[in-house]
Amino acid sequence: MLALSLDMGGTHIGCAVVRDRAILASSSLASEGAGSLASLLPTIEQELRRLLAESHASASECEGLAMGLPSVVDVRTGQIHSNFKKYEDATQLDLAGWCRTTFGVPLRMENDARMALLGEQYAGAAQGFGNVVMITLGTGIGGAAMILGRLLRGAHAQAACLGGHLPINFQGRPCICGGIGCAEAEAGGWSIPGIVREWPGFAESALARLPHINFYSLFTAAADGDRVAIEVRQRCLEVWAADAVALVNAYDPEIVVMGGGVMNSASVIIPFVQDHVTKHAWGAWGKPQVRAAALGNRAALLGAVPLLEEVL
Amino acid sequence: MLALSLDMGGTHIGCAVVRDRAILASSSLASEGAGSLASLLPTIEQELRRLLAESHASASECEGLAMGLPSVVDVRTGQIHSNFKKYEDATQLDLAGWCRTTFGVPLRMENDARMALLGEQYAGAAQGFGNVVMITLGTGIGGAAMILGRLLRGAHAQAACLGGHLPINFQGRPCICGGIGCAEAEAGGWSIPGIVREWPGFAESALARLPHINFYSLFTAAADGDRVAIEVRQRCLEVWAADAVALVNAYDPEIVVMGGGVMNSASVIIPFVQDHVTKHAWGAWGKPQVRAAALGNRAALLGAVPLLEEVL
Repeated sequence: MLALSLDMGGTHIGCAVVRDRAILASSSLASEGAGSLASLLPTIEQELRRLLAESHASASECEGLAMGLPSVVDVRTGQIHSNFKKYEDATQLDLAGWCRTTFGVPLRMENDARMALLGEQYAGAAQGFGNVVMITLGTGIGGAAMILGRLLRGAHAQAACLGGHLPINFQGRPCICGGIGCAEAEAGGWSIPGIVREWPGFAESALARLPHINFYSLFTAAADGDRVAIEVRQRCLEVWAADAVALVNAYDPEIVVMGGGVMNSASVIIPFVQDHVTKHAWGAWGKPQVRAAALGNRAALLGAVPLLEEVL
Repeated sequence: MLALSLDMGGTHIGCAVVRDRAILASSSLASEGAGSLASLLPTIEQELRRLLAESHASASECEGLAMGLPSVVDVRTGQIHSNFKKYEDATQLDLAGWCRTTFGVPLRMENDARMALLGEQYAGAAQGFGNVVMITLGTGIGGAAMILGRLLRGAHAQAACLGGHLPINFQGRPCICGGIGCAEAEAGGWSIPGIVREWPGFAESALARLPHINFYSLFTAAADGDRVAIEVRQRCLEVWAADAVALVNAYDPEIVVMGGGVMNSASVIIPFVQDHVTKHAWGAWGKPQVRAAALGNRAALLGAVPLLEEVL
């Protein structure tokens, strides 16, 4: 199957033409500074047409366009349910109409972590497994679950895609979602700078001399022996591991796939989370494997074909 | 539909003959001190026969026997998966064979919180809702979820029935399940005595003069103004509310039903949890209602008919 695929990220939009498990052509558009999604649609159209030409394919050969969004999205109705701060007009646009008019194909929209799970299950780390939990560690923490071969979506499309918003610290930090002590508030990309700056001894840490604190600088400083970085990294690992246990106990998977940019430190993260899950999660049948995502930022793009093939 | 129903509790076994939404006859057998489930089967048989006679019904008129167990149970295979400490022989017995031989009807076994959810959805607080989370506050904390009219069970029958084993305090108390900071370890019936005894000022509390500390004595002392009891009760409310938020964000229900003996204090618990869920759970579509269970200890017994009717 040939398909168009878009991954609407916070700072970049991934664009691709895919055939089954292969990306024929892809690119990344900077989206920062764009006031609205409507203003970006002509650029997206132009880019997808360029990628189709590069793939020696035409839109009419595509089965559809799959779009991943960092949002609660109901693929069954085509509605975007939650605030999508990056593009506040997204909930108002007739994107299906735009897609039909522009490319002559149907549109399916889905939460980006669900798309990434589909991609990893179809072509990546979770191939062969029908019961999968996906955790994406980024600015936020995304989640998705597949049970008996089907994505879990729930009545209002918010089941299983809020894996970063399970409270794992009930008297903990306020979350941007309005929750308290969500995994994302305790160890998501956006919460790390605040946590590091409040840490005892921060002023003496190498991190205090950096203009930006993020997962990369945290893990780098920890590898260099910085005490504060080591302690905060340890706390992140414990939060992620607790979140993994919560998701295992909630959804009963055979495999947990962890993705996101910080997984360039997979050699630190995966053994810790695997050990924690093996020791602390339920599983009379056995304990789930914990694996790093195999597809990097291509996972959601490669979710296009299974999403378009799904009988909803 | 006529059915036999058993609710295998920790200290008592609920026995009933039910017709649709009505209990025709019921009783409670003490089970403490029984060394094995096998040794109890003749008593259970005798009791169910007595209840059938009281109902002017015969076993052959029943569609089956539904049995709720405080355990991870796979209704599809009839297997009991997790340790069931009360009756260690339960996993070894051919209960389906016993049921067929004794009453001439099929057996369906299910986790007791799932049975209670079915009962409340069929005949109690969740009637008319297809998306339901059930939380049972007892010695442990039970959970169950129904999504789009179907119980969620997962690949190994442990999805959604471990609502008390989501870690809501990632650096918290060890749980009997092997987890860390599970809701049950932080505010389940079995953990309350330990938490109270460690509380600052315990020696001066009215609770220090009681032979047994449980939810009842905790809530009674709190109502009498005991400072330690008020503080521990507040902490329990926060744990249960965080667990409710976790389950709402995990399963996307329209209603959360809370059951268990401590719900005789529903007037304290329900408003607190409702307020917390409304403020802190996701729900672009709206926020779920939080309601006290309506059926008390009859909920699981009344789950018999929907369980036996379910197309698995």
